[in-house]
Amino acid sequence: MVATGQGPYAILMERCKEIFVLGSSVSILHWDMETKMPPKGLGMRAEQLSALELLIHKKLTDPEIARLLEACEGETSSYDAVQKRNVYLFRKSYDESARLPDALVSETAKHSTMCNGSWKKSKAAKDFKMFRNDLGRMIELREQAAEILKDVKGSKTNYDALLDQFEPKMTAERIDEVFKELRDGLIKLIDKVRSSGTVPDLSVLNQKVPIDVQRKISTDAMSFIGYDTTSPEAGGRLDETEHPFTTGSYDDVRITTHYYEDRFFSSLFSVMHEGGHALYDQGIPNEWMYQPVGTPCSYGIHESQSRFVENVVGRSPEFLNYALPRFRKFSPKSFKGLKNKDIIAAANAVNPSKIRVEADEVTYALHVIVRFEVEKDIFAHKVTVDELPQLWNQKYSDYLDVKIENDAEGVLQDTHWSGGAFGYFPSYALGNIYSGMFLEKMQKDLPQWRKGVRNGEFAPVLQWLRTNVHSKGDMYDPADLVREVTGKDITVAPFLKYLERKMSKIYGF
Amino acid sequence: MVATGQGPYAILMERCKEIFVLGSSVSILHWDMETKMPPKGLGMRAEQLSALELLIHKKLTDPEIARLLEACEGETSSYDAVQKRNVYLFRKSYDESARLPDALVSETAKHSTMCNGSWKKSKAAKDFKMFRNDLGRMIELREQAAEILKDVKGSKTNYDALLDQFEPKMTAERIDEVFKELRDGLIKLIDKVRSSGTVPDLSVLNQKVPIDVQRKISTDAMSFIGYDTTSPEAGGRLDETEHPFTTGSYDDVRITTHYYEDRFFSSLFSVMHEGGHALYDQGIPNEWMYQPVGTPCSYGIHESQSRFVENVVGRSPEFLNYALPRFRKFSPKSFKGLKNKDIIAAANAVNPSKIRVEADEVTYALHVIVRFEVEKDIFAHKVTVDELPQLWNQKYSDYLDVKIENDAEGVLQDTHWSGGAFGYFPSYALGNIYSGMFLEKMQKDLPQWRKGVRNGEFAPVLQWLRTNVHSKGDMYDPADLVREVTGKDITVAPFLKYLERKMSKIYGF
Repeated sequence: MVATGQGPYAILMERCKEIFVLGSSVSILHWDMETKMPPKGLGMRAEQLSALELLIHKKLTDPEIARLLEACEGETSSYDAVQKRNVYLFRKSYDESARLPDALVSETAKHSTMCNGSWKKSKAAKDFKMFRNDLGRMIELREQAAEILKDVKGSKTNYDALLDQFEPKMTAERIDEVFKELRDGLIKLIDKVRSSGTVPDLSVLNQKVPIDVQRKISTDAMSFIGYDTTSPEAGGRLDETEHPFTTGSYDDVRITTHYYEDRFFSSLFSVMHEGGHALYDQGIPNEWMYQPVGTPCSYGIHESQSRFVENVVGRSPEFLNYALPRFRKFSPKSFKGLKNKDIIAAANAVNPSKIRVEADEVTYALHVIVRFEVEKDIFAHKVTVDELPQLWNQKYSDYLDVKIENDAEGVLQDTHWSGGAFGYFPSYALGNIYSGMFLEKMQKDLPQWRKGVRNGEFAPVLQWLRTNVHSKGDMYDPADLVREVTGKDITVAPFLKYLERKMSKIYGF
Repeated sequence: MVATGQGPYAILMERCKEIFVLGSSVSILHWDMETKMPPKGLGMRAEQLSALELLIHKKLTDPEIARLLEACEGETSSYDAVQKRNVYLFRKSYDESARLPDALVSETAKHSTMCNGSWKKSKAAKDFKMFRNDLGRMIELREQAAEILKDVKGSKTNYDALLDQFEPKMTAERIDEVFKELRDGLIKLIDKVRSSGTVPDLSVLNQKVPIDVQRKISTDAMSFIGYDTTSPEAGGRLDETEHPFTTGSYDDVRITTHYYEDRFFSSLFSVMHEGGHALYDQGIPNEWMYQPVGTPCSYGIHESQSRFVENVVGRSPEFLNYALPRFRKFSPKSFKGLKNKDIIAAANAVNPSKIRVEADEVTYALHVIVRFEVEKDIFAHKVTVDELPQLWNQKYSDYLDVKIENDAEGVLQDTHWSGGAFGYFPSYALGNIYSGMFLEKMQKDLPQWRKGVRNGEFAPVLQWLRTNVHSKGDMYDPADLVREVTGKDITVAPFLKYLERKMSKIYGF
């Protein structure tokens, strides 16, 4: 460290800490809103979130920050790599935020709280019309922001500016290329699966598993991956929400899942998915706490970690062979007569469906591609709010060959838009692609990892993820991190190869 | 309303709202810390609370507030009573807060979080020494604040300045007088009880009632008093903590209780006590939301509401006669053979004990008097931190005739000091006194109220409390509110009369 004491860098990092601390308070208020808040409290919560977001925005755009940044930038030649990156990341946030008017930030925060409420009501009533106006306003607000951010970021389009918030330096053009390769590969794979003639027995997924047994399975899964929610030193929690999510950072990271008696895989894999996110958040180096580099790299990289734990590990024959006897211990009755082979086939069954969060690994990206295309159309003004349900249903029919019966299982299924998170969805499929690349590298570094998982040993895998991904925080943009870890540019091939290998065994082609 | 639009009064009320909204965010973070936060999250939580408390302090002491207050004060002759009171209360907060240095506010907030952590560990280990240093520092911090506040408030002593925060215009001198009358009356009553020769069978309180049955009883009790935690329009919650508490305001008010299998009264009466607090918080008029008058009057008045619901109603023969058959429905086995007469006697048994929160109505105030005297000594430098356990134990021996065996059941039993809340305890006994005065008046207004409760009807009582106490928010200082409702100055007589009446029937004197 070169710049210490009360030099501009030290002061800048103090400011960063203040902003981070307020942001982490916002996370707790959001978590509480989703999990614990009495329903009547929504109005006050909207006021709280809006006030805090505004304060964060004001702190981030304080003209003093610009002066500090300039002072730091004048001395970066003597900075180490972490310091340089901290200044770069703070500059980026500052330039983007300083241009967003206070009123827009405040209204967006307040509106997202109300909009989330109307989304919930609308979904419960299976009626898009109840959500229509709030969604329309949210699109307008995000468009206003995108218009400004496009200019700052030098993005080609409004939608590119939104994408860059979740996946720095990624563009719709590049995603189009990658998604085309992905889509073509997946469609070939789906054809092979179909032609194989093998049809896994999906009924094993729908047998009733009492909720309290599922809770025990969740606890066991968290213990397997090393996500601690129970010890006196625990830094995690598990709660229940309709739509599972992860929030928090460092020493306070929280995940949620949902339980349906006739879909125990849904809770198990939600816990492993969100657990993968949580391990990443907990794995950011503590010595970078409250610094710009002390945050995850991108939403796509985040998703690579969750998908890695959920799919690469959780749906592997090795994990399921290890886990099934344990499930059986929790409830001999529920899992009686279930064979390892059947549960592995069912966990990896390729089966086009309506709901993204329940989708299998092969068809999952098609759900994402629908959303990516719809979002591109929204921000290119090629579709109106009123046309969204129809466009959605049409694409589900075209790409997944399923018929959407109502808005709750269609355009209303995800929470993201109600919070204004347009540009987020592509991260999910990018996460798949990154996870395939990471797997290819880990396979070389840890050739015995599958054997370990078969014996209930996840620690070496976690250690590999910690060393290669978690410990790097936000030192690199996502494409650079992937190159740093794997030595390669973003490529779909390893993910497709991984799927092909697994599916060929299960489907026998 | 005279001053509207963008006049100074309207702007001042906007500022007040900003401060209130941040304060309510702090409440949620505190609640989360006590109920849900993973243990490892304590360090980050301390940072969050300290940052928010500092922001609140900065907003409250912004020099612009002084200018707005002066402008308002120049036009109060045209204000209505609510506006006048708002300006008076804001001026009081401002004058007090403006004098407290930022560093002191921030350090106190941060220290209280850490201190609460060390109190918990220390209590679990039954070892005061683990708490000693943090408590010592907390006393120093509060003394620094008191020294400043004394001057602003015109208080005679540091301790008076601390008292005034919880019970405006109350002094240690006045409390000494009131508590003397109270102590004398209680001691006479204890003598009568002892001389009566009646000894209620307390074993009925220790019979095992499964926790899930106790949870049903809690739900039933909340439903009886009209504290809604379950409907889609609910504005309340119930959670579990070691030390029960209430937090929140208006549409988001939360209570906690604790469950011990062999002390079902403890959970029932905690729920009714905290429920009484919660009803008050929910009963503040919504049209005063975010204004200074839109807050409860004082801690003593708050306590009068909780004690009213817990003791005057909850421990009344009428409520217990109504409730016992319901308990029995939830668990015929647990309450088999229990007679109404026995549960009433046990619920009102006079039995000097070690733990304040488990104390009976008659001896309760003696616990408070111990704390009041110890606190006076602390801030008069008549006792050192290291001497606290011994002084505590001596007073418990002298006043309650019980022998404290370890610090957990002694000086470590309450959370208050760990949060710096010196001067809070007297509110509890003042609450008893106020509740007696309110009861005397309500008895005249609603002579049939006991009959109603016997039939499960609490609504008229709640309506009386809403009209006479809750709806008045912070329009009056506590002594004035009591005079407004009852026509009398603070007097211990009605509370003693109420106890005498109830105990004479139970003990037969």
